[in-house]
Amino acid sequence: MGYQINGERLLRNLFTMAGFGQNEGGGIDRSLGSQADYDTREWLKDYWQEHLKAEPETDPIANLWCRHLGTENRKPIVIGSHHDAVPDGGKYDGAMGVLIATEVMETIVEQGILLKHPLHVISFTGEEPNPYNLSTLGSKVISGRLRKEDLSHVYNRETGESLKDTIKKLGGDISSLEKARIQPGELAGFLEVHNELGRHLEAQGLHLSGVSTITGIYREEVKICGENNHAGTTMMPDRKDAFLALSDFAVGLNQIVGAYEDPDVVGTMGYVKVSPNEANIIPGSAVGIIDIRTCERKIVCEIIKKLDELTKEIEKSRKVKIQRDVLLDQPARFMDEDIQRIVKENLAKMNEPENVMVSMAGHDASNMQLVTKAGMIFTRSVGGKGHCKEEFTEDADVIKAGQLALDTILRMDEELP
Amino acid sequence: MGYQINGERLLRNLFTMAGFGQNEGGGIDRSLGSQADYDTREWLKDYWQEHLKAEPETDPIANLWCRHLGTENRKPIVIGSHHDAVPDGGKYDGAMGVLIATEVMETIVEQGILLKHPLHVISFTGEEPNPYNLSTLGSKVISGRLRKEDLSHVYNRETGESLKDTIKKLGGDISSLEKARIQPGELAGFLEVHNELGRHLEAQGLHLSGVSTITGIYREEVKICGENNHAGTTMMPDRKDAFLALSDFAVGLNQIVGAYEDPDVVGTMGYVKVSPNEANIIPGSAVGIIDIRTCERKIVCEIIKKLDELTKEIEKSRKVKIQRDVLLDQPARFMDEDIQRIVKENLAKMNEPENVMVSMAGHDASNMQLVTKAGMIFTRSVGGKGHCKEEFTEDADVIKAGQLALDTILRMDEELP
Repeated sequence: MGYQINGERLLRNLFTMAGFGQNEGGGIDRSLGSQADYDTREWLKDYWQEHLKAEPETDPIANLWCRHLGTENRKPIVIGSHHDAVPDGGKYDGAMGVLIATEVMETIVEQGILLKHPLHVISFTGEEPNPYNLSTLGSKVISGRLRKEDLSHVYNRETGESLKDTIKKLGGDISSLEKARIQPGELAGFLEVHNELGRHLEAQGLHLSGVSTITGIYREEVKICGENNHAGTTMMPDRKDAFLALSDFAVGLNQIVGAYEDPDVVGTMGYVKVSPNEANIIPGSAVGIIDIRTCERKIVCEIIKKLDELTKEIEKSRKVKIQRDVLLDQPARFMDEDIQRIVKENLAKMNEPENVMVSMAGHDASNMQLVTKAGMIFTRSVGGKGHCKEEFTEDADVIKAGQLALDTILRMDEELP
Repeated sequence: MGYQINGERLLRNLFTMAGFGQNEGGGIDRSLGSQADYDTREWLKDYWQEHLKAEPETDPIANLWCRHLGTENRKPIVIGSHHDAVPDGGKYDGAMGVLIATEVMETIVEQGILLKHPLHVISFTGEEPNPYNLSTLGSKVISGRLRKEDLSHVYNRETGESLKDTIKKLGGDISSLEKARIQPGELAGFLEVHNELGRHLEAQGLHLSGVSTITGIYREEVKICGENNHAGTTMMPDRKDAFLALSDFAVGLNQIVGAYEDPDVVGTMGYVKVSPNEANIIPGSAVGIIDIRTCERKIVCEIIKKLDELTKEIEKSRKVKIQRDVLLDQPARFMDEDIQRIVKENLAKMNEPENVMVSMAGHDASNMQLVTKAGMIFTRSVGGKGHCKEEFTEDADVIKAGQLALDTILRMDEELP
């Protein structure tokens, strides 16, 4: 038996962090820049200072860091996740990864384990979709995907507050953003633990898994131009109903994507806006955002081609014009093979199946992969729930994932250059 | 040749009123309680005082009246429509009817025509859908469909202002609302001129028409309960997508209603709300409002029965729960046969086809029918446009409708008791 994490302490910390931003219904409201975001950071920094025996640092995009030196002159290994949450979200998404990283380092400090590499714990800023329309913000800045000029005119769509002011409040400084940047090769490796947020593990009877790939994400805005008209006086054949056209598009996308019968190919219309949106007016305009995910570029292209045909059919049958604009076309990102192997070998030692899987959600690890060898560990999400207050990972799985993370960091320290 | 209205003056007044609330795009923003509503009233009262030689009155729900005595001790004949508009609406809907009523009385005053009945011109308060969720407000109060207790806790859903304060600003007084009430039998008759708002007249090559019936309107809120879930990690067969279910419902309603192939049977989903409405979350909740219109009760019942079947199918196929609540179930209202006959005879005298038609839109005349013999005259809407800034009635048709209204009022004065 090697070194053991303190499972009880890990669960206690998870419980404590879930108190920040918990609403009456039991969901977590901890969006970027919220009071709960601020309070969580203050608690986390205090905890790190007291228990990890190191001064917490805040980088220019307000990612929180806690750094320990190694015994040799090596590049740092980084472990962490994010502490923000989707509106009315759950207590595992992000928080569990940050607290497992914390527990890994606390165990190392407490038990006097000497690592060759410096070990850095990180809690990323603004990983979730937020009112600034910037997800995985902290890791995008670190990896150079977002720069100062991209962020200087970003505002909260609800409050109007500038991102600059928000980041300042959180202890960052957008004017010196380049200092947050990590160049490819500066780190030895990165590990993130996260709940799966889906039902793939549960469907296979698994509790833990490594991650092989983070899915590609393709998003389009679909804008239908029909004609506002009176819902009583306009005869059925004369209508140019933009909402019916959007409905056809949503149903069509679902059929096209569903036909693959592949758990790693999904498509959704999650955002819809109808105008003028009055019960007695035929909608003249309707906008939807579609989100298509797969690791295979070929499949994205096939789906787009089928959507082009669907567009023509709907334009004809509903007498509307359809304009489609690409909002995001992010390729799949492959996790490091060495870290995948280490995770699998550690799973085997724990008598768990040596599984690796595709992540259908985006994660900070996806950006970290651009600058270093990156890996992920997933825990089972009971019932496949994610991005909702019902999300749940069993206590035993949280503890096992913490142990797997420690074992993996120790092996990464052994093996990585 | 009998008495003639002044067509040029009528068009000039129409042009003047269109200036109140006209936005940059040329649409009219003149919703209940807006500054433009207020300004229009001030202009109209000044115009009436100067040109109709009578003191304008404002009743407790802020309907504007201008009253002339008759030569005999008869009950009054009322003519009018409303001056408010839908957001970004057109310049004919309501305004034309008010200004034709004004022109009819101005001609009578100017030419010294003596009527047996008192003649009252009215401009109704809040006929259009508005942020207080009360359409045909003024005529509903007059006819007793809305009482003080119904209106004492109504607020503007956008500004939060109470209806009480709004009506006070417009010169009314909700605390004495019962004084606005007109009992059945108190009036001799009511006439309203309005643009058709649909394409029925144009499709038949007609310019003017009487109205036989005002359509029944049946509205339901359709609420879909699915499950919020992550748009990436949730496999297609596991989804409970509330928006897809709502899309199925909208498309199904369209098919069911369209199958009647009857210009006087229509159905629409004009209002849609999706939640949480984020591109990366499968919608867990979706609400739509459906609006079904026909004069035939039997058809409404058939459609509801088919929607019940559709509901069951969708609940099964999309794994959601659907709750449907009736918001409105207003029966068709029949226009007075004597007034229909008078309008037809006057059309014949003008060498116009003696047409009467169903109104697929609701009107104040629908409520006035509850208390008196009510009739309507429709003008052709070019291209069938209604409730939009493009709505248009040709100048010649406006003038003809004004003349038809005068001729009809004179005959109503002759024939009605």
